[in-house]
Amino acid sequence: MHNTKAILEKPGKMVIKDAEIEDPKDNEVQIKVCDVSICGSDMHGFTDGPYLPPEDPNQEIGLGHETAGIISKIGKNVTNFKVGDRVAMEPGVPDGTCEFCRSGHYNVCPNVDFLATAPNYKGSLTNYINHPAEWTYHLPDNMSLVEGAMTEPASVAIHAAESAGNLIGKSVVILGAGAEGLLTTTAVKMAGASTVVVIDIVDNRLAKAKELGANATFKGDNPDVVDKIKAVVGTNGADFVYECAGSNATAQIGLKIVKHTGTFFILGTIPGATPVEFLKINREVTIHTLFRYLNDYPKTIKMISSGKFNVMSIVDKYFMYKDIQEAFEFATTHKSEFIKGVVIVDKSYK
Amino acid sequence: MHNTKAILEKPGKMVIKDAEIEDPKDNEVQIKVCDVSICGSDMHGFTDGPYLPPEDPNQEIGLGHETAGIISKIGKNVTNFKVGDRVAMEPGVPDGTCEFCRSGHYNVCPNVDFLATAPNYKGSLTNYINHPAEWTYHLPDNMSLVEGAMTEPASVAIHAAESAGNLIGKSVVILGAGAEGLLTTTAVKMAGASTVVVIDIVDNRLAKAKELGANATFKGDNPDVVDKIKAVVGTNGADFVYECAGSNATAQIGLKIVKHTGTFFILGTIPGATPVEFLKINREVTIHTLFRYLNDYPKTIKMISSGKFNVMSIVDKYFMYKDIQEAFEFATTHKSEFIKGVVIVDKSYK
Amino acid sequence: MHNTKAILEKPGKMVIKDAEIEDPKDNEVQIKVCDVSICGSDMHGFTDGPYLPPEDPNQEIGLGHETAGIISKIGKNVTNFKVGDRVAMEPGVPDGTCEFCRSGHYNVCPNVDFLATAPNYKGSLTNYINHPAEWTYHLPDNMSLVEGAMTEPASVAIHAAESAGNLIGKSVVILGAGAEGLLTTTAVKMAGASTVVVIDIVDNRLAKAKELGANATFKGDNPDVVDKIKAVVGTNGADFVYECAGSNATAQIGLKIVKHTGTFFILGTIPGATPVEFLKINREVTIHTLFRYLNDYPKTIKMISSGKFNVMSIVDKYFMYKDIQEAFEFATTHKSEFIKGVVIVDKSYK
Amino acid sequence: MHNTKAILEKPGKMVIKDAEIEDPKDNEVQIKVCDVSICGSDMHGFTDGPYLPPEDPNQEIGLGHETAGIISKIGKNVTNFKVGDRVAMEPGVPDGTCEFCRSGHYNVCPNVDFLATAPNYKGSLTNYINHPAEWTYHLPDNMSLVEGAMTEPASVAIHAAESAGNLIGKSVVILGAGAEGLLTTTAVKMAGASTVVVIDIVDNRLAKAKELGANATFKGDNPDVVDKIKAVVGTNGADFVYECAGSNATAQIGLKIVKHTGTFFILGTIPGATPVEFLKINREVTIHTLFRYLNDYPKTIKMISSGKFNVMSIVDKYFMYKDIQEAFEFATTHKSEFIKGVVIVDKSYK
Repeated sequence: MHNTKAILEKPGKMVIKDAEIEDPKDNEVQIKVCDVSICGSDMHGFTDGPYLPPEDPNQEIGLGHETAGIISKIGKNVTNFKVGDRVAMEPGVPDGTCEFCRSGHYNVCPNVDFLATAPNYKGSLTNYINHPAEWTYHLPDNMSLVEGAMTEPASVAIHAAESAGNLIGKSVVILGAGAEGLLTTTAVKMAGASTVVVIDIVDNRLAKAKELGANATFKGDNPDVVDKIKAVVGTNGADFVYECAGSNATAQIGLKIVKHTGTFFILGTIPGATPVEFLKINREVTIHTLFRYLNDYPKTIKMISSGKFNVMSIVDKYFMYKDIQEAFEFATTHKSEFIKGVVIVDKSYK
Repeated sequence: MHNTKAILEKPGKMVIKDAEIEDPKDNEVQIKVCDVSICGSDMHGFTDGPYLPPEDPNQEIGLGHETAGIISKIGKNVTNFKVGDRVAMEPGVPDGTCEFCRSGHYNVCPNVDFLATAPNYKGSLTNYINHPAEWTYHLPDNMSLVEGAMTEPASVAIHAAESAGNLIGKSVVILGAGAEGLLTTTAVKMAGASTVVVIDIVDNRLAKAKELGANATFKGDNPDVVDKIKAVVGTNGADFVYECAGSNATAQIGLKIVKHTGTFFILGTIPGATPVEFLKINREVTIHTLFRYLNDYPKTIKMISSGKFNVMSIVDKYFMYKDIQEAFEFATTHKSEFIKGVVIVDKSYK
Repeated sequence: MHNTKAILEKPGKMVIKDAEIEDPKDNEVQIKVCDVSICGSDMHGFTDGPYLPPEDPNQEIGLGHETAGIISKIGKNVTNFKVGDRVAMEPGVPDGTCEFCRSGHYNVCPNVDFLATAPNYKGSLTNYINHPAEWTYHLPDNMSLVEGAMTEPASVAIHAAESAGNLIGKSVVILGAGAEGLLTTTAVKMAGASTVVVIDIVDNRLAKAKELGANATFKGDNPDVVDKIKAVVGTNGADFVYECAGSNATAQIGLKIVKHTGTFFILGTIPGATPVEFLKINREVTIHTLFRYLNDYPKTIKMISSGKFNVMSIVDKYFMYKDIQEAFEFATTHKSEFIKGVVIVDKSYK
Repeated sequence: MHNTKAILEKPGKMVIKDAEIEDPKDNEVQIKVCDVSICGSDMHGFTDGPYLPPEDPNQEIGLGHETAGIISKIGKNVTNFKVGDRVAMEPGVPDGTCEFCRSGHYNVCPNVDFLATAPNYKGSLTNYINHPAEWTYHLPDNMSLVEGAMTEPASVAIHAAESAGNLIGKSVVILGAGAEGLLTTTAVKMAGASTVVVIDIVDNRLAKAKELGANATFKGDNPDVVDKIKAVVGTNGADFVYECAGSNATAQIGLKIVKHTGTFFILGTIPGATPVEFLKINREVTIHTLFRYLNDYPKTIKMISSGKFNVMSIVDKYFMYKDIQEAFEFATTHKSEFIKGVVIVDKSYK
C-alpha cells in the first residue's frame, strides 16, 4: 500500500505527492479511491485557485470531491461496513449541532467540513482517504464505481427537483445544458414534469437534452428565446425555472419566463451582481438559491440503481490520475467539447 | 338528433328513457356523450341507490360521471370550443365563491354540483349533456375518447400522488389493487417513487400492479404481510401509504406500516368506523383523507397524452349503452373479474 | 342623492365632477362611500399618473381604493346585505376562472378588475360606488368606518405575516417604517415573532415602530446598520426580512441580513433594477415578492375587531373629500410628516 | 456536596436513595437540580409504572423530566456554560445520525435517550444530574427556575402551535383544559388565532382558559357541545382542533368539528382504540399526532422571557423533594384540584 495525493501547487499546476496512509478514526472508514468525477468548481480551482482562498499561504490544496471507492479499513466503532465494500462518499461533513443541522438543513451548516474547500482543502484525488461512516454509502451491485462518483452531482439535481415539490404535469425551464442542467433535466422528468424546455448555446448539449427527455430545446442566444419558450410552456410562463448556466444572461431570461407564483431556482454559480427588476416579477414570484443536497445520497443511489436515472449518459471523457496535470489542462481548455469527465484513480475496480 | 338517458328506476333496475335536448346556457357547451367509464360509486348506486339518497322520492336518478364526448353545440359566451371538438368533462361544478373555492380547495366546495349525486343526480349516461365550458377540457389528438373518460379516475390518482409532495426516492405502499389503487401505483411511480409495494387479495390484480411498475406485491390476507412489506420498505416503515381498498382490514395494515413523520392517505371508501390506536402512531404521523381532484384535469391529460400514464392498461371490459341494465348486472356481480369497465354510448367516435 | 367623483385631470390636478348614480347589478351592492385611506400608489398616481398608463388618452382616471361605507342599495340576487349595513370593500375583483384563481391565488389573477388602476381606473373617491357583494365585507359594530378603510393596507400586512408561516420565536427585520412597514411590524408581532427589528431614516417613524412593539430600531443610513441588526437577531441573520421601503438601499441591507434558509419578502415598490449577488446568498435563501392579499379581509377584520391589530395607531392625518386637490397636494409634499392619511368622503357616519 | 435520587420502588411507592455524584463527560454539564415540574406521565408512572416497562426487573426507575437548575461543573469540551449558570434541560438526547435526526425530526428519533423512560429510566428528581451541553439552555435573568422547568411542557404547546402554520385569524378548538390544553390555548393565541374555544368538564379549568384568552368555553359533557362550538367557529367547523384530554369522548367531538381541509392534532395520550368514521371526514381532513417538541426550547424561552407566554399562570401547587412520596400521593389523588405542580428540589435558588 502506498498513498499519493494530487495537490494544486499554484493555479494551473498540479503535482502528485507522496502521502501517508492514516488510520481511520473510530467512526471512520478508510477508502481506496477509485473514481473521481470532475466538477466545475475543480476546474475553477485549477485555473484560479479555490473560490475561498486559504488564509495560510502554506495551506496544501487538494481537488476532487465526487468520489467512489472501496473500503480498505474500518474504524473500531464502525459496524455497517467491511473491507472490500464498494462505496460513494458524501463529501460534506456537517457539525450536527448548529441550528441548521438540528432543523434539517445540514447542507447549509456553516461549520461543514467539505472536501477540496475551506477550511481543510483536502481533496479526494488521492489513493486513500478517511471519511466518517455516517457520510459513506453502500453501492448496489448493479451500480459501477463511476456511477458512485456521479452520485454527487446527481444528488445536486435530485435536491433541485425535490425543492420544487410535486412536479406532475408541471412546466420546467432549464437554463444551461452542462452537466448540472442535464442531470436536472433528467431529475425533473423522472419526477413527473410534463413539459421541460432546455436552453443552451451549444448545439450538441441541446441534442443531449433532447435525448434525455426535454420536450423542446432552444439556443439561448436567439433574440426570440423568451417567446419561443412561452410558445411551449404557455403565455403565463413556466412553473419552475432552473438557472444552471451560472450566467447573468440566462438569469435575465429566467426572470422573464417564471410564472406568477412560480419559482426561479438558482443552481449555477452566477458571478457578480444580477440586476433584478422586482416590479416585473412582483406577483408572488419566488427566487430560491439551491445549495448542494440534503439527505439525497440514498435516494439518488436508489434512482440510479433502478435504471431510471441514467447518469452515465453525460459521462463522455475519462482521464488517468497519473496524468492529472494534463487532465486539468485539457478539461479547462476544452470545456465545450465534453460534458462530464471522470478521473480514474484506480482502474482495477469497476 | 334524439336524446335518451339511463335512469335508476329502483336499486337493481335501470331503464333508458327518452329525454329532451336542452340548449346549453350562455357559458355552457352541449356534449354528445361517447364514453363513460364506470366507477365503484356507480356500481354501489345500481345495487343500493345513491350514497346520499334524495329527499324527494320522485327525484330522477342518473348514473355515470366519468365522461368524454364531442361538442355538439356551444353557448353564446363560449369562445374556446367549437362543434366537433373532442372533450372530457370534469363532473363537479363548484360554486366558486365559498371559503374553500376561494382558498384553492374547490374539490371540497359544499355546494358543488357533481354528476350522479346530490342534489341533482344528473348522470352522464345519456346522449346529450350540457356542461360549463370552464369545466370541459380539450383532448389532444393522440388521446382516445375512452382515455378522455378515464381522465376522471386518473385525476383522482394524480391528486393522490400530488398530495405527497415530491416522491423521488420515497417508499409507498398501496393497499388495494382495484382501479384506483392501480392508477395510484402508476401515478406515484411516474412521480419518482423508488419503492412501491402493492397488496391485494386477488392474484391477477397483483400481477397487473407488477406490470405497472410495483417493486413488490403481496397478498393482503397473508398473516405476515406487515413484516413482508417492511422487508421491502425498511423497518422504519413507508413514507406514504394509500388505502385504496375501502376496507378496515387494509386500514389496520396501513396504520402498522406508516413511518414516523409519514402520511397515511385514505382514498378508498371505508365503511363504518375504523379503530385507530393513536398511541401506536404517536410520532408525528399524519392521516389525510383525499377527495376527488383539484386542478388536475389539465395535468392528467398531459400525462396521458405524453404516453407516461397508461390508463388503458386497466380498461378491460366494455359495455354498450343500450344494454345498460345487463352492463350493471354483470359489473356488480363479477367485480373481481375485471378492473375497469367502460360504457360505449356512441361508438361512432374514437 | 347626488353623486360626484374625484378625477385626475392630469398629473398634479384633481377635480370633482358630477356623476350618475348607477343601479347595482344583480350580484352587486351600491355603497355610499364614507372613508378612503390614501395609499402610496394614490400619491404616485397624483404626481405622475398611474403606474400603468391607460391606452385611451380620454380614459377617465379615478383614485382611491382603500374604502369603507354604507350599503345604499342592493342588487336583486344579494341576500347577505341590507341597506344601512356598514361595510369594507376588497378593491380587486378577480375573474374566478383563470389558473391562478382556481388554484387559490386570486391575488395574481391577470384579469383582476382593481380600483384605480388598469383597465378601468375607477376610483373609490366618489359618493356612490357599486361593488360585487362577494367582495364586500360586514364591519362589526366595534369597528369604525376608518378602520374599515384601513382593512385594505392591514390585509397587505396580514398577508405578509401569513406568508412567513408560523412566526413564534422567529426573528424579523422590517426595512422601512412607513404605513406598510408599521402594519407589518404589528402583524408579525401578533403572529408571535419574538424579535422584530425595524429600520427607517425618519426618527418619529422609528419611535412609532417601538410603540407598536419593535424590539429594536435603527437608522437605516447608519453605516453599521447591518452589524447593529445582527447584534439583535444573531450573527446568522434574521429568519425573515421584509422590504417595505421600496428602495434599493434597503434591499441591499436585506440581502445582507437574511439567514441561510431564510426568506426576504419584497413588499415595497422598488423602482429600477436591484443588483443581487447570488453567490452571497447561495445557501437556500428565498426571495419572495408579495402582492396584495388573499382571503385576508375576514381575518383582518377579526384581528382589528378583537383589539389586537391597532390600525388606528398609524392614522395621523385627515382630509375632506371636497378639498381633494389640497389633500393630495399636501400629502405628496409632506410625506415624512404623517404616516397614513384618510379622506373623509361622508362625515355623517362613523 | 451530596447526591440523592428519587426512585420508584414499586407502583405507588417512591423512596429517596443516596447516589454518587458523577463527573460530567467531556461534552456534558453537571446540573444542580432546583425545580422539576410534574407531568401527567410522571403521575401515571407513580401509580402504574412506566408506559414502557423495563425488560430488566432490577432496573432502577426514576421520575421527573421537566427540569431547571444551576450548572455545578462542566465537561472539558464545554465552552458555552460556566459554573453558576441558570439552565433548563431539554430531556431527550437523540442520536443525531438516524434518518429522522438528519431530516430535521429529532423528536421522533427511535434511539433518543429521554429522562424517566426507556431505556435508561433516569429521572431528574435528583440533586445532581449530568446532561449534554448541546441540550442545555441558558435562562435569561428575568426567568425563574420554575419557569425554566416549565419550558418543557410549554415547548410541547409551542410545537403544537407551530405545527398549524400561520394562525392569524384562524379558529382553534382545544379539547381539554389541563396543563397542556391551557398552555396550547396561550400558544395559539400568541400566534394570532382569532377564535379559540376550549372545552373541559371542570369549571375552574374553563375559568382559567377564559383568563388565558379563550374566546369561549363549554362543558364537554354538554350534549349540544358540537353545536355550541359551531355557533362560535362557524358552521363549517374549526380550522384546527387539538385533542389535549387524552380521551375518546373528546376525540369524537374533535372529529365532528374539524373543518374540511382542517387539521385535528392529537396531543393527549388517548388510551385504546378511537373509532374513526373516515366517510364523515372524507374531505381533505388531516389527523396529525404531535410528539414532544423540535428546536423549541430557544423559542419557548424567548416567549416566556418576553412576558407573552405566562406559564406561571397554571402553576398552582408546590411540593418539597424530601416529601416526594406524599407529593405523588397527593398529586395522583387530587388531579382535578390543581393544574400544574412543581417539586422544589433545592429552594435556595430562584
